[in-house]
Amino acid sequence: MTDEPDPRFLRSRQAILDAARELLLAHGPVAVTHQRIAEHAGIGRATVYRHWPQPEQLLAEAMTTVPLPFFESPAAPFRPWLTGELTSLARQLELDAVRAVATTLANAALWNPGMDARRAGFAAAVSQRLASALTEAERAGELSLRGELSDAAALAIGPLYYRATIERAPADAALIERCVAAVGVWTSP
Amino acid sequence: MTDEPDPRFLRSRQAILDAARELLLAHGPVAVTHQRIAEHAGIGRATVYRHWPQPEQLLAEAMTTVPLPFFESPAAPFRPWLTGELTSLARQLELDAVRAVATTLANAALWNPGMDARRAGFAAAVSQRLASALTEAERAGELSLRGELSDAAALAIGPLYYRATIERAPADAALIERCVAAVGVWTSP
Repeated sequence: MTDEPDPRFLRSRQAILDAARELLLAHGPVAVTHQRIAEHAGIGRATVYRHWPQPEQLLAEAMTTVPLPFFESPAAPFRPWLTGELTSLARQLELDAVRAVATTLANAALWNPGMDARRAGFAAAVSQRLASALTEAERAGELSLRGELSDAAALAIGPLYYRATIERAPADAALIERCVAAVGVWTSP
Repeated sequence: MTDEPDPRFLRSRQAILDAARELLLAHGPVAVTHQRIAEHAGIGRATVYRHWPQPEQLLAEAMTTVPLPFFESPAAPFRPWLTGELTSLARQLELDAVRAVATTLANAALWNPGMDARRAGFAAAVSQRLASALTEAERAGELSLRGELSDAAALAIGPLYYRATIERAPADAALIERCVAAVGVWTSP
């Protein structure tokens, strides 16, 4: 390998990733096989194997093209900020692509160590960002936290995740408001 | 077909279901294919096809062997009853088999109408049982409900489901207590 990879190598890599993502969104993770990717991308199966010997790695990489950027840049006043973040998360979870990635991650993590590491990384990042924002909100006198800070993500996000993936229905403003209220007692309006 | 099916037919059917469940729990839904079931059960692939032409139906049927009996038989006092039910649900969600079934259901439902019907049936049953129990608790003067009754399942179960499948950690008594508190204001201790 040189510093500048073969452009054909990069093109076939991108075509394979696109095919894997399209198959995942259209037919689910069971469709992300070497055979079907090769057919869908119009590329030889041997080429797909050369890029990704394991289909699980390819599935994981295809999923990273759906970003999950939540709870970044917290800012006072924190109650409307949290309401906005949870509303954006609820709207994202209504998109087929995001639901596909979230449920594939939770499912595949049970058997695939690479997926489990990705799940753990996502869970830890969300939990830490939320804990840090709520700690700031408490310092600013806007919030009196209830219980363990480490429970905040489950209490605030769990109902939206259940609504989107088990109940398969939209989360309205009233449910989101109750998720905001679940983390503690807000002293700001 | 006669009223009394061939005992060999029933035996091979059971062997296929056992193999499907074992493959699901050991390797995930991607392993539930005609080929692997035939190998695992020591049965010809044609026999597996004859019983279940579609592997998705087989996966769905293998999953029904893991029962999810929650919120049945509510009884006063309702607060300890709900705490007990949510504790039992949290303990179930710590079992690999239950986590496998719950996350496979949420994931496969996105592409498979049969799985989606099963998901919808589970969500509706849980939501109705919980709503009925909470209505009784309110009538008994034990609870002052907050918000929509149709949000109760998401608020009480969602955090435990997120904890088990995204955070992959146990739910302690404090988190369960906050799920109980999320449905309304309890006037009983």
